Amino acid sequence: MGSNDVVRVGIVGVGIMGADHAERLARRIAGARLVAVADPDEGRARDLAARFEGVRAGADALELIAADDVDAVLLASPGFVHEDQVLACLAADKPVLCEKPLTMDSESSLRLVAADREAEERVGRRLVQVGFMRRFDPEYAGLRTLLESGELGRTLLLHNVHRNASVPNADFRSEMIVRDSLVHEVDVARFLFGEEVVAIQVLSPAPTSHAADGVIDPQVAIFTMAGGGIVTNEVFVNSQVGYEVRCEAVAERGSAVIGRPSSSTYTTALAVDGLGRWGGEVPADYRTRFATAYDLEVQAWVDSVRSGTPVGPTAWDGYAATAVSTAGMASLASGERVDIALADPQTLSHSASSPDTDTSENAPSTKEQP
Amino acid sequence: MGSNDVVRVGIVGVGIMGADHAERLARRIAGARLVAVADPDEGRARDLAARFEGVRAGADALELIAADDVDAVLLASPGFVHEDQVLACLAADKPVLCEKPLTMDSESSLRLVAADREAEERVGRRLVQVGFMRRFDPEYAGLRTLLESGELGRTLLLHNVHRNASVPNADFRSEMIVRDSLVHEVDVARFLFGEEVVAIQVLSPAPTSHAADGVIDPQVAIFTMAGGGIVTNEVFVNSQVGYEVRCEAVAERGSAVIGRPSSSTYTTALAVDGLGRWGGEVPADYRTRFATAYDLEVQAWVDSVRSGTPVGPTAWDGYAATAVSTAGMASLASGERVDIALADPQTLSHSASSPDTDTSENAPSTKEQP
Amino acid sequence: MGSNDVVRVGIVGVGIMGADHAERLARRIAGARLVAVADPDEGRARDLAARFEGVRAGADALELIAADDVDAVLLASPGFVHEDQVLACLAADKPVLCEKPLTMDSESSLRLVAADREAEERVGRRLVQVGFMRRFDPEYAGLRTLLESGELGRTLLLHNVHRNASVPNADFRSEMIVRDSLVHEVDVARFLFGEEVVAIQVLSPAPTSHAADGVIDPQVAIFTMAGGGIVTNEVFVNSQVGYEVRCEAVAERGSAVIGRPSSSTYTTALAVDGLGRWGGEVPADYRTRFATAYDLEVQAWVDSVRSGTPVGPTAWDGYAATAVSTAGMASLASGERVDIALADPQTLSHSASSPDTDTSENAPSTKEQP
Amino acid sequence: MGSNDVVRVGIVGVGIMGADHAERLARRIAGARLVAVADPDEGRARDLAARFEGVRAGADALELIAADDVDAVLLASPGFVHEDQVLACLAADKPVLCEKPLTMDSESSLRLVAADREAEERVGRRLVQVGFMRRFDPEYAGLRTLLESGELGRTLLLHNVHRNASVPNADFRSEMIVRDSLVHEVDVARFLFGEEVVAIQVLSPAPTSHAADGVIDPQVAIFTMAGGGIVTNEVFVNSQVGYEVRCEAVAERGSAVIGRPSSSTYTTALAVDGLGRWGGEVPADYRTRFATAYDLEVQAWVDSVRSGTPVGPTAWDGYAATAVSTAGMASLASGERVDIALADPQTLSHSASSPDTDTSENAPSTKEQP
Repeated sequence: MGSNDVVRVGIVGVGIMGADHAERLARRIAGARLVAVADPDEGRARDLAARFEGVRAGADALELIAADDVDAVLLASPGFVHEDQVLACLAADKPVLCEKPLTMDSESSLRLVAADREAEERVGRRLVQVGFMRRFDPEYAGLRTLLESGELGRTLLLHNVHRNASVPNADFRSEMIVRDSLVHEVDVARFLFGEEVVAIQVLSPAPTSHAADGVIDPQVAIFTMAGGGIVTNEVFVNSQVGYEVRCEAVAERGSAVIGRPSSSTYTTALAVDGLGRWGGEVPADYRTRFATAYDLEVQAWVDSVRSGTPVGPTAWDGYAATAVSTAGMASLASGERVDIALADPQTLSHSASSPDTDTSENAPSTKEQP
Repeated sequence: MGSNDVVRVGIVGVGIMGADHAERLARRIAGARLVAVADPDEGRARDLAARFEGVRAGADALELIAADDVDAVLLASPGFVHEDQVLACLAADKPVLCEKPLTMDSESSLRLVAADREAEERVGRRLVQVGFMRRFDPEYAGLRTLLESGELGRTLLLHNVHRNASVPNADFRSEMIVRDSLVHEVDVARFLFGEEVVAIQVLSPAPTSHAADGVIDPQVAIFTMAGGGIVTNEVFVNSQVGYEVRCEAVAERGSAVIGRPSSSTYTTALAVDGLGRWGGEVPADYRTRFATAYDLEVQAWVDSVRSGTPVGPTAWDGYAATAVSTAGMASLASGERVDIALADPQTLSHSASSPDTDTSENAPSTKEQP
Repeated sequence: MGSNDVVRVGIVGVGIMGADHAERLARRIAGARLVAVADPDEGRARDLAARFEGVRAGADALELIAADDVDAVLLASPGFVHEDQVLACLAADKPVLCEKPLTMDSESSLRLVAADREAEERVGRRLVQVGFMRRFDPEYAGLRTLLESGELGRTLLLHNVHRNASVPNADFRSEMIVRDSLVHEVDVARFLFGEEVVAIQVLSPAPTSHAADGVIDPQVAIFTMAGGGIVTNEVFVNSQVGYEVRCEAVAERGSAVIGRPSSSTYTTALAVDGLGRWGGEVPADYRTRFATAYDLEVQAWVDSVRSGTPVGPTAWDGYAATAVSTAGMASLASGERVDIALADPQTLSHSASSPDTDTSENAPSTKEQP
Repeated sequence: MGSNDVVRVGIVGVGIMGADHAERLARRIAGARLVAVADPDEGRARDLAARFEGVRAGADALELIAADDVDAVLLASPGFVHEDQVLACLAADKPVLCEKPLTMDSESSLRLVAADREAEERVGRRLVQVGFMRRFDPEYAGLRTLLESGELGRTLLLHNVHRNASVPNADFRSEMIVRDSLVHEVDVARFLFGEEVVAIQVLSPAPTSHAADGVIDPQVAIFTMAGGGIVTNEVFVNSQVGYEVRCEAVAERGSAVIGRPSSSTYTTALAVDGLGRWGGEVPADYRTRFATAYDLEVQAWVDSVRSGTPVGPTAWDGYAATAVSTAGMASLASGERVDIALADPQTLSHSASSPDTDTSENAPSTKEQP
């Protein structure tokens, strides 16, 4: 499309993320117009659509994807329906921003890598962007810029901390910490090192009493990178306190931290217990902490649809992350280190193997891939 | 206009701020389209327009303001032409976002207060928003919310610090520190106290050797608020270091600071002098520090044009700030405290006197006015 | 005395500071032995003495000062008895560490300056050290070292903040804030600028409701230094929160802050109100904040008694601080700026006028004096 | 000895630590007198003694230990001579402060545990204190107090970071990182959890180019505590930057960090590269960072000699740390997790098994032991 045309967007899935993205597209993003939302729960879709002018609602994702007045699709549906929906977007030659995880297992993710390559050969650009929004967070992006600048020398270690105040206890299982939370650190490690994760070990500390029975929380995971770097990760989803995401990179001549506690207002005041305290508030959840990252991610996606130049995490990034978290779930069960063998990207396509042909400033993507 | 229509914006003045706003409107703001730019230096206007599709350039501000396809005007022209241009917008019943200062002296600012009141009586809404963007900065807005919540009790003092790395030495005069820099602190004091400034004293320390001959820099200014609160201000425009803007509010049961040093990446590394140092970078200028504030200001203005509900600093706010900085220039000359007598808003309009009839969440405005 | 002899110390005054110093001398200071304490309330003196082995108690300060087994005297008595007690120490050729204020008015302080000069001519060293312990605080001492290094260029401004949680309301008067609290900032300004204060203005904001009726609290004081530097000071003795003492120096090529909030343990935890908060505790009072400063002050004094080389603030420093706070009390009453004219030190002694002949590392003293 | 007698101390070993302790005892510690130093390099011992009055020097450690005028011994000699020297102190019934490591292997450390128990049965108090000075650091001690208070719930994880600017490359081996550096984190883990370490795994990242050939640096070590807690550790001895020691404890209702970057003076200034930067200096080495901890450790030891009540880390603490670091060196070689089986303290003595009978305020010791 022309670079000045307005992108007409359809959203599939109207849960928390879908509704959040609808607000974003309608109120804060330049160059886009929200035209349709779809969700199996059609009433909920209708409620969301009613918040805006000129947005229609439906129950059928594939119908929305195929609609003539939808230029591009944002998938905020559950991971287990992603494969069909992404394939439908590719079949319609439509750019798609797919929330993470790309799919629920490595095989289906790999099929999407191949399908996106075929689309690229057909339409001249890859169509899939995966929703690892942290790559658009100014702090993570700034950290990558710093590490790539070489100012601190080669990166040796990362230390990640990822805490949520709490998760719903019903039906929650230990594996979900690996698959839904730790997967962000997997992408961060690949993004900052510019290398694949080759092994993962997930350790099980004595759990917090705030976790549901049988749930291992917190977890400590160790990644080994292709070049020998090591990544330590704490994931703690019932920390009671708030949303804390922190990353420290240790390099040969210095270290750098992002995600330090910060808040717009810093007070020195009397606490309820009568003690004077200084400090600030911890954000309640990821929507506060990563509000800017989501805005920048969706703006970059809309801009890329207009310009024809893809940006951000690729289907390969989605596949690799899924492969690592699958190995992580096996390690969680066994306690042993599990090696990860990715497919050979050469046998798939040159597209998947060379994401770095995209050199635009606004396109954070993994630097090197096998 | 309808709340889903796209606002067609014209920008008058294509200096640093005008160009910055053009990028913003074209690339980051929902619901707006940049259609025209005007500047006496028509070549420069043409260069800017050429960066975007479908934007025309001209030399004549009044022609742009009058154009049928311009729904709203953003004035980034010098202060001494503001009066005529704002009056032209009002005559055309067009909403205008006017960069600060509103005008160069209190009398002309007061004429615009009256003119905006007449416009309000005619079209049902005030049309002038003044570009005190700090009110949209999440830190300043959060501080006002905290102070208004009463959690810390009544506000007693503010301590402001405002530093620039440097200013051009040619033609720079001490008064410009009061008029162009300190005026932001004047608006901050009014915004956070919700009261008028009733007296100002500007002190002249022995100046830095980095200031031009005869220029008093830094300056220390003391405001007295209508309710007896006191505000200390340091303004230092040749600090050599970077852009630092900080505000500490001291209240009966605690204090709060915004603008603490922060940067997206915090490093611990070897400095060039061979010493290990921790810390981060100071932003180079206001466009970095207040990038988000400008985005939110312009988005709120565009939204207000679509919805018909005005937001943000009013013509009265512009007038009051000009009156205080005029008194400040007198105090700089005499070294004495100068009292400020504002016009009686009752004799002007109920509009100017009751900005708080606007109670929208997105509408930071001065809480109380005489 | 020989540099390896143990100094036998007597303490006059057994209030909070006297008892604190007794613990310090008995338990944490090398090369000293506490041998006697005296207080008009002899029972209280006896209670304190009983905490240690071999310490005798009495009611008569002059008897303690004259005793053969007392090598040096620490005066922790009220300011209004200091003149007589210091003169008694000088008459006995005994080194004396006198808590601030040196005396209650400039004239009596000046008499002590002259008496110490006579002592110096007689015994070859000045004998009086005044208890401005902040000069021994590693933060203030480090700040002076930085400013003197010239790394940041000439010092232009200081911004001081000095807050106490509360003061007893009974008999408390606004002047006490100037005389007992602000006097520390007076000494800090002289110490960091290495210059005298030549004018002071004390402003009276609308007071906190936590102050007693008629008490002006907080106060804002402005000092003008001999070289044209300006110092802003907030003193707030009923802040409710805790003990906060902060100093920011602004110089030609950078600024430096000491006294930033810090605490040994920094937590991120759930506050009583159910919000996650990060930060730390504010110290309750000066004994926590300045514990190390007091230890270093008394150790330096004991070392100086053994070595014969005086250190730290002189009688002149005590006199100058008293002169400024006296002018400050006048300004508090009038609201006007009050100039300060110090005695001509040339007519007094070369000792008072050249404290910088002492160049030892451990001897923080005012750099320049008229 | 009587609680008011001065403790006459002899120091064995006059390297960096021995000389540092000599200065400390001579200039900053109450109640002690340095009387003798001994070192095989007698010239170096003589040079050190000459800095003080009345201190004699010799080459023979056992002669110093046996001397009648030496009440207590501070061992700053290399670890491989500790066993003989500690046994000599015990044979002479003299309290000994032994720098870490207690000995070079678990068996010899265990022999000292037994010998100290016999001494205790004979003289009524244990005589050995091991120099894990971090227990006296106000930050570590404050963290333990916080964790023991239960305010944050049960401790789940620790994250330790331990960086040195550099180590001498000659003869440096990877194992020394475990034995000499990581051993401090072993003691910290035991101190803060109040439990033994039951397993250790040492991981070998691709090393920094600043390490000598074949040296693994940084290293990442994982401890498993008896109660199931997990401790992650980064040890990096050629970080180039400075001395950084940090510990974060993660508990059920919050986390706490000590060792955050801090420096007495915090500047915002122009860096050599022309960028404005805020922040502070990283201490160069452990003597700066832990100066206060060493002072408090030695003062507590001197006080304990006078009072007869032992404080601080015991021979058992020294033995347990040695056992863990020995297992760590095995893990470094194999890459596998290594379990640690400590001796049964019951078969040794009730003393080693119940360090918590010492409940004095000033006695940080491991809370629980098997």
